[in-house]
Amino acid sequence: MKGFFMVRVAIIGASGYTGAESIEIILRHPRAEVTYLTALPEECGVVSDIFGQFKGRCDLQIEPLDLGKLSELADVALCCLPHKVSMGFVPKLLEAGVKVIDFSADYRIKDAGVYEQFYQVEHTDKANLEKAVYGLPELYREQIKGKDLIANPGCYPTGAILAIAPLLKEGLIETNSIIDSAVTGVSGAGKNPSETFHYPNMNENLFAYGVGTHRHMPEMEQTASNIAGGNVGILFQPHVGCFDRGILSSVYCQPKGKVTAENLASLYNDFYKDEHFVQICSAPPAVKDVAGTNYCHVFPTTVKGMVVVFSVIDNLVKGASGQAIQNMNIIFGLDETLGLV
Amino acid sequence: MKGFFMVRVAIIGASGYTGAESIEIILRHPRAEVTYLTALPEECGVVSDIFGQFKGRCDLQIEPLDLGKLSELADVALCCLPHKVSMGFVPKLLEAGVKVIDFSADYRIKDAGVYEQFYQVEHTDKANLEKAVYGLPELYREQIKGKDLIANPGCYPTGAILAIAPLLKEGLIETNSIIDSAVTGVSGAGKNPSETFHYPNMNENLFAYGVGTHRHMPEMEQTASNIAGGNVGILFQPHVGCFDRGILSSVYCQPKGKVTAENLASLYNDFYKDEHFVQICSAPPAVKDVAGTNYCHVFPTTVKGMVVVFSVIDNLVKGASGQAIQNMNIIFGLDETLGLV
Amino acid sequence: MKGFFMVRVAIIGASGYTGAESIEIILRHPRAEVTYLTALPEECGVVSDIFGQFKGRCDLQIEPLDLGKLSELADVALCCLPHKVSMGFVPKLLEAGVKVIDFSADYRIKDAGVYEQFYQVEHTDKANLEKAVYGLPELYREQIKGKDLIANPGCYPTGAILAIAPLLKEGLIETNSIIDSAVTGVSGAGKNPSETFHYPNMNENLFAYGVGTHRHMPEMEQTASNIAGGNVGILFQPHVGCFDRGILSSVYCQPKGKVTAENLASLYNDFYKDEHFVQICSAPPAVKDVAGTNYCHVFPTTVKGMVVVFSVIDNLVKGASGQAIQNMNIIFGLDETLGLV
Amino acid sequence: MKGFFMVRVAIIGASGYTGAESIEIILRHPRAEVTYLTALPEECGVVSDIFGQFKGRCDLQIEPLDLGKLSELADVALCCLPHKVSMGFVPKLLEAGVKVIDFSADYRIKDAGVYEQFYQVEHTDKANLEKAVYGLPELYREQIKGKDLIANPGCYPTGAILAIAPLLKEGLIETNSIIDSAVTGVSGAGKNPSETFHYPNMNENLFAYGVGTHRHMPEMEQTASNIAGGNVGILFQPHVGCFDRGILSSVYCQPKGKVTAENLASLYNDFYKDEHFVQICSAPPAVKDVAGTNYCHVFPTTVKGMVVVFSVIDNLVKGASGQAIQNMNIIFGLDETLGLV
Repeated sequence: MKGFFMVRVAIIGASGYTGAESIEIILRHPRAEVTYLTALPEECGVVSDIFGQFKGRCDLQIEPLDLGKLSELADVALCCLPHKVSMGFVPKLLEAGVKVIDFSADYRIKDAGVYEQFYQVEHTDKANLEKAVYGLPELYREQIKGKDLIANPGCYPTGAILAIAPLLKEGLIETNSIIDSAVTGVSGAGKNPSETFHYPNMNENLFAYGVGTHRHMPEMEQTASNIAGGNVGILFQPHVGCFDRGILSSVYCQPKGKVTAENLASLYNDFYKDEHFVQICSAPPAVKDVAGTNYCHVFPTTVKGMVVVFSVIDNLVKGASGQAIQNMNIIFGLDETLGLV
Repeated sequence: MKGFFMVRVAIIGASGYTGAESIEIILRHPRAEVTYLTALPEECGVVSDIFGQFKGRCDLQIEPLDLGKLSELADVALCCLPHKVSMGFVPKLLEAGVKVIDFSADYRIKDAGVYEQFYQVEHTDKANLEKAVYGLPELYREQIKGKDLIANPGCYPTGAILAIAPLLKEGLIETNSIIDSAVTGVSGAGKNPSETFHYPNMNENLFAYGVGTHRHMPEMEQTASNIAGGNVGILFQPHVGCFDRGILSSVYCQPKGKVTAENLASLYNDFYKDEHFVQICSAPPAVKDVAGTNYCHVFPTTVKGMVVVFSVIDNLVKGASGQAIQNMNIIFGLDETLGLV
Repeated sequence: MKGFFMVRVAIIGASGYTGAESIEIILRHPRAEVTYLTALPEECGVVSDIFGQFKGRCDLQIEPLDLGKLSELADVALCCLPHKVSMGFVPKLLEAGVKVIDFSADYRIKDAGVYEQFYQVEHTDKANLEKAVYGLPELYREQIKGKDLIANPGCYPTGAILAIAPLLKEGLIETNSIIDSAVTGVSGAGKNPSETFHYPNMNENLFAYGVGTHRHMPEMEQTASNIAGGNVGILFQPHVGCFDRGILSSVYCQPKGKVTAENLASLYNDFYKDEHFVQICSAPPAVKDVAGTNYCHVFPTTVKGMVVVFSVIDNLVKGASGQAIQNMNIIFGLDETLGLV
Repeated sequence: MKGFFMVRVAIIGASGYTGAESIEIILRHPRAEVTYLTALPEECGVVSDIFGQFKGRCDLQIEPLDLGKLSELADVALCCLPHKVSMGFVPKLLEAGVKVIDFSADYRIKDAGVYEQFYQVEHTDKANLEKAVYGLPELYREQIKGKDLIANPGCYPTGAILAIAPLLKEGLIETNSIIDSAVTGVSGAGKNPSETFHYPNMNENLFAYGVGTHRHMPEMEQTASNIAGGNVGILFQPHVGCFDRGILSSVYCQPKGKVTAENLASLYNDFYKDEHFVQICSAPPAVKDVAGTNYCHVFPTTVKGMVVVFSVIDNLVKGASGQAIQNMNIIFGLDETLGLV
């Protein structure tokens, strides 16, 4: 059809959960198609053998990365590699002439020193780090358009920032008072088996982890500070619960002056009025309502003079692959919701 | 766009799980749109208030059924009413000039006597019962095309029949030897709360039910007999397990002569070679691989001289709403897989 | 055997989860036996018909309450009736000459005005309210000994108070800074089916509830204030997750001066050194480790200058029936751990 | 106390699930105590560090096996080692002068040739194989008394044999017609992490495995043949579902003559009338009713002329550690139910 093009998508690191979720979304995307899948040699094979849900739906081969093939076959690469590994590949992907949406943390933390402290490794691609745009469309849509390199946000920061952005923007809260007590589903832990996530250990279980050390904390603080226009400190405490998908962020903060639940409802509805994927609720949102979707449900209220905001997202969709496709849609000038409704 | 039309879909009984699942699928369907939602007066309201997952995605009102509106707004009605209730509405829906895909058992059992015995109620719409086509596309595709009334198959019969159709067609098994030991997820029990399906009772649980009395047994036997061209008896034993979606059917049967796993693999691959939604596996299929999809994964093999076939489907998709949309696509001459990949 | 007696236990309201859990524990108690089970007439019957797990283990009849029989058959009544209902029965139970351990909130809140505000009903048994002892043995063991009426603590307050008692006792934290963000398993919602806790709604789900209104908030504040010797304010936010048993309390508070994780570990180990059922951990505790037990695992630490304490209990055991048996053991001068190891 | 002794129990292979479950049971056993725990050197450590649920309840060290210590510290060894490994240790344990209850399959299959075929290894302890008694107390109680070496039955065979023993004993069924379609909880897969049982793969899942090859099949057939007094063939098909504990066995068989559900109820009630741990139900039993207990619930009935029997057990208790303690109680002349009610 004239004037009609298909975005050709490569997935680098297609053998993990965010790779699979990206394929799942693009299969339903009317203007994009998966054309190239790569992974480490030991994780290669027919994608439907590796992920049974693709039988009859996607029979592509996952292959070791070949930059020539990438260049020829794809317009954009979703780079689903782990932290630290990603920055070794991204420069090559860019040189191959494709747009890159990177799922790792490697291009999210603008201050390389902070990155190096939390990730315990030297940042080897500072040039691109500088150019990368933080891909949270609800806040940085204009910067994302047409860009070459997007740092796709972390799952917890997406949930937390969407929960508090209106408060930060309006300067309504004490910026060192924020506590984000969040619970993720187990898919957030990735695909590799471990004792902790062995079914009989994780089933019927719930616990905190990463106390004071989770790497999403500096990412949250950087974005929050950017929105607030000044230093913001966040006590971020992650937990993991016995469900597959979703993050519930329960955020507690001290208001600067008096605020009411009504003020907040009105502020949030206004702030997000043009945002398709952010829905303001009038009661606490449920993780299951957003599972499998790119939506974020937010409920702001007050309790005993404190501001309390609840947000839910699907960690694999709005917290990863869905947000990446949303970014892809923006980059290529497509309707932002394509493939995501 | 020239030659391009949208199928306008009404959902009668939109407040239950199969109604919601139908909306979910049509939201992603490029050639269909939900135009009218109805339910009993006490279950009416904005659909996104009733099902939180539709917030921002579908804001239609669920209303009491008005036949005039139906006639005006829709091309096809997905009738998601319960058994016995449905046959009171279907004649009116047909008179309103829409195609009807009925989810209940009311038009599935051709022998009204058998229906009346299992459902303990007189059949009040025998005229349409006679005209209705059993909507299992893999076996009755030609009959479905263009029809006015489709009896959408039950979830268990869909899984069981797809598992054994090749055996029946080829006359390979003793037709009174079939045992279908199947396990469904809890969504199969519907939306109404009950003690049995209260979370603390059902969680971490598994049990048999409907011993010797499940109403899907005569439906299975009718379809199996139709395929085999002679009487087929099936001992169908349902169980319910602690998961949301899916049916695993483990079917055991006595072969008439010697068959090998290789024979079966070859027979099944051949029988289903043009069927997009039936995938033949070389190992036992997993319920989770088809959850949320319209696919049926089948693995036929032999154990100690018996034929054993495993099939998995999503009870709400291939076992209900997905199959209905597949039927809708066929009726309207659309690509059968639209909205379902 | 000389000098050896069996405590005869009646359970009033035996048809609910805490009733069943109490039976379960007493079946394994070497010095107690269940002798009398009562419930509302419509919930009576053989206990093993109502709770399948008692088949062959307990064949007592649950009967409508008869005070004469109670008097004759029991030394102590575990009163598992709901809030508001309990205070109508407790005076009669006491008059029948048995000790009473009451599971409801009716005798927990010393200030009848606060009770009446949160429970929206007049307190009709203020005389006994005054005499009742709050049955948290780790803090009020001496007062519990030999008493006639024990107000068995709420599940959330048990988890929260054990988490912060050492801080309050030592005056280490700002007493208006405490946030308790807690998650319970679904058994906490009780036995009656509802839409919210229908399996397909609750499974794979997590959400907040009772925002700013949960009735355990004043109970927590009263006990915390009593320990601190001054007013304590707690922002208590409950959530419910998809598991049967357990409460994880994540408590955040502002220290008055500088505290370190090492200080806290040492303080907590010392504070609880003689407490069998409170175990201090050196990493975040897991709900599953205490499921089915009367133990509370606590991990105190610091994050970014804040004190963060995690505690886990089983809501039905340490949060209800187990704590009641612990109280019973104390009242009757038995080893406190009998039946609970 | 005069005439009162404590059975001193060693657990060989204490770092796995059946080891932990054995400790759990013995902690509540009034006449037994855990005195010695051993494991491979790399799995040693304080038991409460390895299994968090033992904090404050059991602080024994798991140590590498020392036969001298075993001899000195224990009266009986629960040998929880894997198949093939066990037969290398059992002779030494017996020489150390303790009774041995072996959890592996190494002493269950009397025909060493069948063992060697299914386990693909030479049997290296045929002398003890001959002496070992199959520890299913409901059928072999008299032979168990006072014996030195018990082969504790497999979990699936326990559920299956208790389901059909009365039929076999009475010669009521065609002995080559038996199909056991069973579903286990994930704890049956043991403690080692794997891709299959990684939480996000196993959660919300259900699938068959071991098609035609499961090693419990010959064990079942041997015991069934022994009871029937002639060759019995069983088509055993295991599945694994997303729950921690339990096995549901749905057994289908062809009767020799006409049987009714009433006949069966009466037969089963009579057959098991003195068996504390086998309870005959009048409706399909639920896995959750026996979770955490040593009970087996059985429901025999007929469907379309076939005999259908459902049984449920906890795979870790009646299917492993509970049955072992039951055997221990019998060996030492204790009340068979001690520690198990």
